Amino acid sequence: MGLRPVLVVNFKAYETAIGARGMAVALAADRVASEYRGLARIIVAVPATEIARVAEAVEEVDVYAQHVDAVDPGAHTGAVTLEAVKEAGGRGTLINHSERRVTISHIDFVVRKAVRLGMEVLACADTPAAAAAVAALSPTMLAVEPPELIGTGIPVSRARPEVVTGALRMVRAVNPDVPVLAGAGITSGEDAAAAIRLGTAGVLVASAVMKAPDPEAKMRELVEAMVREAEARG
Amino acid sequence: MGLRPVLVVNFKAYETAIGARGMAVALAADRVASEYRGLARIIVAVPATEIARVAEAVEEVDVYAQHVDAVDPGAHTGAVTLEAVKEAGGRGTLINHSERRVTISHIDFVVRKAVRLGMEVLACADTPAAAAAVAALSPTMLAVEPPELIGTGIPVSRARPEVVTGALRMVRAVNPDVPVLAGAGITSGEDAAAAIRLGTAGVLVASAVMKAPDPEAKMRELVEAMVREAEARG
Amino acid sequence: MGLRPVLVVNFKAYETAIGARGMAVALAADRVASEYRGLARIIVAVPATEIARVAEAVEEVDVYAQHVDAVDPGAHTGAVTLEAVKEAGGRGTLINHSERRVTISHIDFVVRKAVRLGMEVLACADTPAAAAAVAALSPTMLAVEPPELIGTGIPVSRARPEVVTGALRMVRAVNPDVPVLAGAGITSGEDAAAAIRLGTAGVLVASAVMKAPDPEAKMRELVEAMVREAEARG
Amino acid sequence: MGLRPVLVVNFKAYETAIGARGMAVALAADRVASEYRGLARIIVAVPATEIARVAEAVEEVDVYAQHVDAVDPGAHTGAVTLEAVKEAGGRGTLINHSERRVTISHIDFVVRKAVRLGMEVLACADTPAAAAAVAALSPTMLAVEPPELIGTGIPVSRARPEVVTGALRMVRAVNPDVPVLAGAGITSGEDAAAAIRLGTAGVLVASAVMKAPDPEAKMRELVEAMVREAEARG
Repeated sequence: MGLRPVLVVNFKAYETAIGARGMAVALAADRVASEYRGLARIIVAVPATEIARVAEAVEEVDVYAQHVDAVDPGAHTGAVTLEAVKEAGGRGTLINHSERRVTISHIDFVVRKAVRLGMEVLACADTPAAAAAVAALSPTMLAVEPPELIGTGIPVSRARPEVVTGALRMVRAVNPDVPVLAGAGITSGEDAAAAIRLGTAGVLVASAVMKAPDPEAKMRELVEAMVREAEARG
Repeated sequence: MGLRPVLVVNFKAYETAIGARGMAVALAADRVASEYRGLARIIVAVPATEIARVAEAVEEVDVYAQHVDAVDPGAHTGAVTLEAVKEAGGRGTLINHSERRVTISHIDFVVRKAVRLGMEVLACADTPAAAAAVAALSPTMLAVEPPELIGTGIPVSRARPEVVTGALRMVRAVNPDVPVLAGAGITSGEDAAAAIRLGTAGVLVASAVMKAPDPEAKMRELVEAMVREAEARG
Repeated sequence: MGLRPVLVVNFKAYETAIGARGMAVALAADRVASEYRGLARIIVAVPATEIARVAEAVEEVDVYAQHVDAVDPGAHTGAVTLEAVKEAGGRGTLINHSERRVTISHIDFVVRKAVRLGMEVLACADTPAAAAAVAALSPTMLAVEPPELIGTGIPVSRARPEVVTGALRMVRAVNPDVPVLAGAGITSGEDAAAAIRLGTAGVLVASAVMKAPDPEAKMRELVEAMVREAEARG
Repeated sequence: MGLRPVLVVNFKAYETAIGARGMAVALAADRVASEYRGLARIIVAVPATEIARVAEAVEEVDVYAQHVDAVDPGAHTGAVTLEAVKEAGGRGTLINHSERRVTISHIDFVVRKAVRLGMEVLACADTPAAAAAVAALSPTMLAVEPPELIGTGIPVSRARPEVVTGALRMVRAVNPDVPVLAGAGITSGEDAAAAIRLGTAGVLVASAVMKAPDPEAKMRELVEAMVREAEARG
């Protein structure tokens, strides 16, 4: 991952997240990822039902689940296991999103299993203290998202920079190896660039892309701005 | 559905439920369903990640999800919506399995939406009273499964016939249109035949098939026994 | 209970529900209950922490919990058991309120145990179908509360009478012995009288009393209107 | 709290936790606390329904809830708020016990509110990593309890000392100010002394006391052993 800025697109359960429309966004992400190969990384977190089809169709982007249950394979009706996500072509999973909070033990379980399976975990948190708590569990990455800004278009990186810098400071004290993304309200290239300027490794977005008139242009704008900012920072 | 006995195979999250092994069971179910076309119906309830691939591959069996969340499309990270299941090729869903109980309002929400989307809902219950409660919500079918027998190989239809007949009686008083399946501990053709004899519309099984040395032979045994019993009952 | 209209006051977790303020409401309820002895019944559903003190202080009103967990005594940290509620002087419990929905099995468990312990269960439901489902589990009473009206002051008994009459009709088809209360938006004596006119056994209120400038006057207004209406209906 | 060893007795929902039997254990704890005034601290975590009566009756021990919900006073039927616990005489609460896990945001919410209300929070964790995560949220104390040892009588302090020392090391790296208790399987004075020797601030027990033939003698044994060990370590 290193110095390449990361764009994570959370498809959520939007109408545009499934079927032909979801596939179109995933393929657009794949084109943008090809253009910025070596310069940026794009991850699409798709509904569980779409992982197999999207993973089959894309080449450059990585496909994540949006949530997995904290169980091993077995008699667990309705569970989405990390093994099933991997089998479907998924590279990792989001966990503990504000719309699907889980326990510390749940995150701990998923992170440990992901290490064993060679998969990744992007864990979410809402405050600097919560981000530090998540960091203690050593996820692959973490995202700080004040829930009150999610879906508002008020960018955390510009409206609440202290949440981001506070999270970075507390996370580094606990576990300096965990890259931190900024989430919530990120809608423009300038918001994404501001996140990089604050010291994050990238951004986690949802409605900005999934509800955009032109999702591909929006993803290109976000990636381009982060890449420029990252290069400027050397 | 009518007089055709129904076999529902709940794949759960078993190791045999995903990837090539899950597909093999689904294709075997499809072959058995072809053999008994017009005489029996087979439904496979697969993990969310497998719905699209299995639905693409099979012709005669219907594919169900094992659980759906009670939300409409929107900002619901990690949710499995009925819309997503339909988009992936699913024909319906299990709901309220003992390993994933939900509220009455949740079942009510899912049943109403399924009607709108032209989909089916198989709702589970553990006791005659719970079965009557579920029946009041008018699911497509319901299954009575005493949780203490699930996975034991002690067939509800033979060891606890009063649970099945009690459920049938109470369900008919509330909503005579809802077909009732027997679940829990059904492992042999004789168990399945006993369920038909008690007046059920079929059986819901999981480990009996998913852990069988030869899942196809096991499904054929169960279907054959139910079809014979149904014909004998005229 | 019979023909005596029932007023249930759900204290929720309002600031007025605990300590001296909660006790004042409970004692006021007790005075009103004394005035209408033999004509009406008043139940106060108080926070778990208040049951013992309130039960010790009142004479005419019955004290309920607002929720109990579906476990027997044992190693269940943080659980509120029906045994603990009884030991504290509680006479019963609410269950499945829209702010604390539970599964069918949970309601079933609590109702069965309440019968064994000689206690009562008032189960909530949001729609006629959900009310019928709840009725199949044979609670002592049930309350129909469309969640979209809770706390609004728009009385279900006047703004949505069809929800109440629909629930009454469906409940009677399933289990004619279960008295049905109307909840949500009941704020005046006229709303309560309208509920009795529709055929209910009483009303379930919360904010109307707990946020009233004079809770005692409000409870007297509600009880008086129901008693008059019940007498008029003879 | 300082150098005084801490004994926390989790009453859980045992039959001995409520009514006269629960009160007897609490009063016994109070006698032991008086004997060791200035040398040890005893906390009893009682069912929500018992807080008021126990807090009224004891003088030396502090009374905790076993769980609180992450809500402020308001329309939350069935919730146990920290405000209600305080009003009933509680000094703090357990949170995130293995029998009642909650989210990081939930712990964060409860800790912040406890600080505002002048109350205490004892947060539980099952592994060293989870303990570090909990420590990042700055509870008053934390307890490390491998769930597989709870109720077994196999003392974590002697059978799995590396869990305790690992937790101590990781917690100190994150937040050196948080005292750490050992839980799970502690049944004898020697187990408790071993916990002090490993560097903990005390122990969290449940069945050892609640199921003891003589709970008072058991609490005295545990406290005496910790006090001696603490003095020996000087």
